[in-house]
Amino acid sequence: MDLAGVFFFAMSGSLLAARRGFDIVGSLMLGACVGLGGGILRDLIIDQGVPNAFASPVYLLPPVLATVLVYRFAASEHRYRNALTTFDAAGMALFCIGGTKIALAAGLNPVAAAVLGLISAVGGGVIRDVVANEDPQLFHPRGLYAIAALLGAGLTSAASSVGWLNAATGLAIAVLVFALRMLSLYYRWEIPLAGRTARRGEPVVTPR
Amino acid sequence: MDLAGVFFFAMSGSLLAARRGFDIVGSLMLGACVGLGGGILRDLIIDQGVPNAFASPVYLLPPVLATVLVYRFAASEHRYRNALTTFDAAGMALFCIGGTKIALAAGLNPVAAAVLGLISAVGGGVIRDVVANEDPQLFHPRGLYAIAALLGAGLTSAASSVGWLNAATGLAIAVLVFALRMLSLYYRWEIPLAGRTARRGEPVVTPR
Amino acid sequence: MDLAGVFFFAMSGSLLAARRGFDIVGSLMLGACVGLGGGILRDLIIDQGVPNAFASPVYLLPPVLATVLVYRFAASEHRYRNALTTFDAAGMALFCIGGTKIALAAGLNPVAAAVLGLISAVGGGVIRDVVANEDPQLFHPRGLYAIAALLGAGLTSAASSVGWLNAATGLAIAVLVFALRMLSLYYRWEIPLAGRTARRGEPVVTPR
Repeated sequence: MDLAGVFFFAMSGSLLAARRGFDIVGSLMLGACVGLGGGILRDLIIDQGVPNAFASPVYLLPPVLATVLVYRFAASEHRYRNALTTFDAAGMALFCIGGTKIALAAGLNPVAAAVLGLISAVGGGVIRDVVANEDPQLFHPRGLYAIAALLGAGLTSAASSVGWLNAATGLAIAVLVFALRMLSLYYRWEIPLAGRTARRGEPVVTPR
Repeated sequence: MDLAGVFFFAMSGSLLAARRGFDIVGSLMLGACVGLGGGILRDLIIDQGVPNAFASPVYLLPPVLATVLVYRFAASEHRYRNALTTFDAAGMALFCIGGTKIALAAGLNPVAAAVLGLISAVGGGVIRDVVANEDPQLFHPRGLYAIAALLGAGLTSAASSVGWLNAATGLAIAVLVFALRMLSLYYRWEIPLAGRTARRGEPVVTPR
Repeated sequence: MDLAGVFFFAMSGSLLAARRGFDIVGSLMLGACVGLGGGILRDLIIDQGVPNAFASPVYLLPPVLATVLVYRFAASEHRYRNALTTFDAAGMALFCIGGTKIALAAGLNPVAAAVLGLISAVGGGVIRDVVANEDPQLFHPRGLYAIAALLGAGLTSAASSVGWLNAATGLAIAVLVFALRMLSLYYRWEIPLAGRTARRGEPVVTPR
């Protein structure tokens, strides 16, 4: 399941590389950044020796596969954007569960484990957008992103506390997170803005 | 004192989120990045197990509080910018002392401890500006920033070496760093540019 | 050799700071980020206590030297760009060998050690470009960058496996990596793009 998450995130990285006109090596690098970045960040924080991605070289295969697939089949600009968002949502759904489980196994308290699950889930995507000089998806006021990941991580942490976490409930949580993310994008659910600015750079005169 | 620093930095993150038109979840995420980022970086480097921010969930409260305050009270664009700089200076002043103390307690030599204090103090702000796609304040040729933080970290390290570091001297250093930062902005103190370019992209012909 | 690599990378950082109109403190900060960032990242991942850059303060000297040199001698915009690329290539050539050696000494398997050598070699440059808000060199479809670093890291890892790694072969690999990078820039070698877009933002209609 962890490898599937790495693959989905790597696809989102390679698609962004294709959209931005990077070459195949840049595609591989960006795919690896996204796929492995969130997990490396998680493993650095829980401080349990060398991160998984370096301990077992099998983690390097999904980015290679993603680069080859995107190079062979990626076609038009418009589909890039939709496919990127979908793969990103799938990676996020798997990582918020896997990250929380690993954090719990490392002995973190349930709240910190859920936060670390959130970081695993959104960290790779933030790294992708930062190194490619895009505004991170995490901050777009468009659909639910961090909320969906935090819900998934919190449910995983809670299910583990009461002993209900197994392959079936884990998969159910992943499907829920993925569905929530995609539905919120499709129906354009919105959450309140951080301040009272109507739009960027334009001060709002009337108090609310 | 550490929590106050986290809160000040989180305020600067939430204000930037408001200025950029992020939603409240983005505001919480950015506030948490800034407030906790510098400390997590410091704790990763001194390699003393799980970072404080994860060991005690109380560190998650300041970003929540900052998001709520900014959402309720942040009003006009102009005040955002001033308030952001002021909160950032306050966070920096507290973190350069706290970071140096923690690094000394971890057994680093005084020079490395001061450098790590500097990293704690400016790391969160750099993360904030990088993920929000702004040019980092750290590099603006406008007022003293890194110099003030390095001075505070160096004084803390020196005071600790001679056994003079206590709550009173720590607070005095924090006030000094904060005052230095704000005065340098107000009076537009300038330090020499890195090269001989008069402005960006324009080569200077006459040697100096 | 490690210090020489830090110095070359710090020069690239200070030159970018000069080109972007940062002041000398920004130049020192950016130089230190580039020179020490890749190594700190490597040391965090292999998880062997406090990173070298903090254990021995001598690592702080190359960024200071680079800032002084750039401030005294950096002259015209055009030369900045060429000098930046050259210093960056020299730093990369030295770091892909040093990083791989340190990773092997920490007990990583040969594949992971080569990947970590690659990260040491390109990490500092990515940090430089990300914090200065530039598109990372790593992703430019222009010359060989990651390929050259990975070749160097792979050769180092292989040479070490068969016991041939010494000062002479290490230097030979560094020269090869540096030459490959510079030649690929000079002769504009290109590798295939990640997708079928002819240029950024323009969908390609005819399949290839």
